[in-house]
Amino acid sequence: MAGNEFILPVATHNAIIEAAYRKRGFTPEEAVPAARFCQMAAWHGIKTHNGIKALHLDDHLGSGNAKLRGCVPGAAIEKLPTRFKAAQRWNANRKLGQAVAFDAMDTCIKLADEYGVGIVSVDQAFHYLWGGGYVMDAAKKGYIAYTNCTAAMAEVVPFGGKFPTLGTNPHSWGFPTTDAIGYPIVIDWATSTVAMGRVQQFVREGKPLPPGSAVDKDGKETTDPTKVAALLPFGQHKGYGLSLIDELVAALIGGSLPTIRSRPEIAPAGEKTTPTFFFQVIHPEAMSCGAFVKGRNQSHNVKTVIQDILGHGNEKCMLPGQLEHEAALRSAKADGLIFTEAEIAEFVKIAGEVGIKLDAAGLRRV
Amino acid sequence: MAGNEFILPVATHNAIIEAAYRKRGFTPEEAVPAARFCQMAAWHGIKTHNGIKALHLDDHLGSGNAKLRGCVPGAAIEKLPTRFKAAQRWNANRKLGQAVAFDAMDTCIKLADEYGVGIVSVDQAFHYLWGGGYVMDAAKKGYIAYTNCTAAMAEVVPFGGKFPTLGTNPHSWGFPTTDAIGYPIVIDWATSTVAMGRVQQFVREGKPLPPGSAVDKDGKETTDPTKVAALLPFGQHKGYGLSLIDELVAALIGGSLPTIRSRPEIAPAGEKTTPTFFFQVIHPEAMSCGAFVKGRNQSHNVKTVIQDILGHGNEKCMLPGQLEHEAALRSAKADGLIFTEAEIAEFVKIAGEVGIKLDAAGLRRV
Repeated sequence: MAGNEFILPVATHNAIIEAAYRKRGFTPEEAVPAARFCQMAAWHGIKTHNGIKALHLDDHLGSGNAKLRGCVPGAAIEKLPTRFKAAQRWNANRKLGQAVAFDAMDTCIKLADEYGVGIVSVDQAFHYLWGGGYVMDAAKKGYIAYTNCTAAMAEVVPFGGKFPTLGTNPHSWGFPTTDAIGYPIVIDWATSTVAMGRVQQFVREGKPLPPGSAVDKDGKETTDPTKVAALLPFGQHKGYGLSLIDELVAALIGGSLPTIRSRPEIAPAGEKTTPTFFFQVIHPEAMSCGAFVKGRNQSHNVKTVIQDILGHGNEKCMLPGQLEHEAALRSAKADGLIFTEAEIAEFVKIAGEVGIKLDAAGLRRV
Repeated sequence: MAGNEFILPVATHNAIIEAAYRKRGFTPEEAVPAARFCQMAAWHGIKTHNGIKALHLDDHLGSGNAKLRGCVPGAAIEKLPTRFKAAQRWNANRKLGQAVAFDAMDTCIKLADEYGVGIVSVDQAFHYLWGGGYVMDAAKKGYIAYTNCTAAMAEVVPFGGKFPTLGTNPHSWGFPTTDAIGYPIVIDWATSTVAMGRVQQFVREGKPLPPGSAVDKDGKETTDPTKVAALLPFGQHKGYGLSLIDELVAALIGGSLPTIRSRPEIAPAGEKTTPTFFFQVIHPEAMSCGAFVKGRNQSHNVKTVIQDILGHGNEKCMLPGQLEHEAALRSAKADGLIFTEAEIAEFVKIAGEVGIKLDAAGLRRV
């Protein structure tokens, strides 16, 4: 594996991504957080939502969509008036998702500093990619953070149903456990059993899917990856409920029909096709009742509880966020972002499109 | 089925439950919400957390625990000072869980009315039984409600582990969908694949457990219900992460080691053995960005989204909370609480202990 991996310096990576966004018409105020986000994803080993994926998404559903741009370069967030002091409601006007999400999480932190908890609901959004990144960022700053969004496409069948009417609708929670264990615990996943990208991987490898993952065009469960028409929620009715939460939150915020989301080409006139975001931050002191036993402070108490959970023969268990932390250590050791040969080839192509010469042969190997 | 079911009038049921709590030393201010809660559970068909279970729990882990009372009749909630305006932190002093939970959810509603969102964190709690009841109650009042708690006992093995160090740790979400579909959507379940009570049912029926449900005393997965030593989280690492959330929230609030929770008989000196609660309410107007298309208002938009999800061939799908709603309709039609013959026998016993004569033969059949 390592033999096929190359190290892309952060500065080079960010220059390429920023230039790629600038070429698509985005402002420097958008291109910089966009690149920062892609850097964070790659740094933490997130292959599914790195710069390659971000630009691909923008080309197809975002600023590159011919029917209706899902993402509008230079759009301004409209912060709507509200009578509620710890809650904000924004119309993102299809502004770049990463820029909106960083801004929203920062706003939640400011609200939590004053009120103990703060929420930001965002209508007319564009895909923010890896929700885990925003909660990890807030957790590293010492906060308990949460976000959900409606995933671009309806690809998931409700439990007991036949037709995909739900997004893969992720949930992401981050906890400020850096003092306790060295990194934030980040619980972050889609509510489908597998992702559509994984199904393609099973096709390439000629392997069957795990049972309960997907259905064929007739809505019948299948383990044949070549026959997959839609995905199933994980954990049957439980994952279905979790997916439904994102749709209900979106419906309350202002989202329209799930089955036309990100699909302006099939949307009836007058319907919206944008996803929504929801963000929440809690200040840890707002939750502390202060009565930690044995002289522990809050962070030490968290550490002791985690030790108890991972003790008693459970020493080999992983914590959510541990893999991302280990990837970050690897990136730090490599002093750069680690990509496969195929990924580097994509970066060479992206760089070439914006007139940057990326010499793949000159990159260090891991 | 119906032939074995009897109707217990609400007033009779509540008189029995109130008297049973009073006999255990609880005040009228505790016994009344305790009975109200048991009534709500039975009314909505919740068999696992009705009055029989509530009193059984109090006898074993609560006021009846010989080593240390997990629940203290007449205890007063201490509302701790805080600098955060939308967050409260309470020391429940082991007060009756149902009374504390109703109070906490009401407080969250008041906070949400002013701030858009409100949270209450509760240390030194005692089992509140059915979390779905509190969020359903708030959702019927028009709010988005959430609660989690650390379940009494550590019965669940972390993903990849061998030994139970996590509670069955439930999450409950309620959405104000009554105007849209006639009842609130309530997503409410434990994070274990099955409950310990269900395992006993498999033993009685001589049936194997579904794969991935439980482990034996050596931490190996088993489908033999007679060999079950501990449960597994649902959905592998995803359910594990959800269970972990409750433990982290508890650790931040002030909870102690999961493996000694509700087990004062094995707890080292100086450690707490109480669970914690977390409650949150959001005002739906605080989330609305107001731009609902096609002239819809917020509730109509929610209805339209649900119709889209349950359309396209998914008409047979259930919504979370639908079963509870159908049970409530059945109770309303019966004009009373529906119990099996075995359950009525328990109520006769409980009634007898407090000097109330319950004539089972005189009860109406369903």
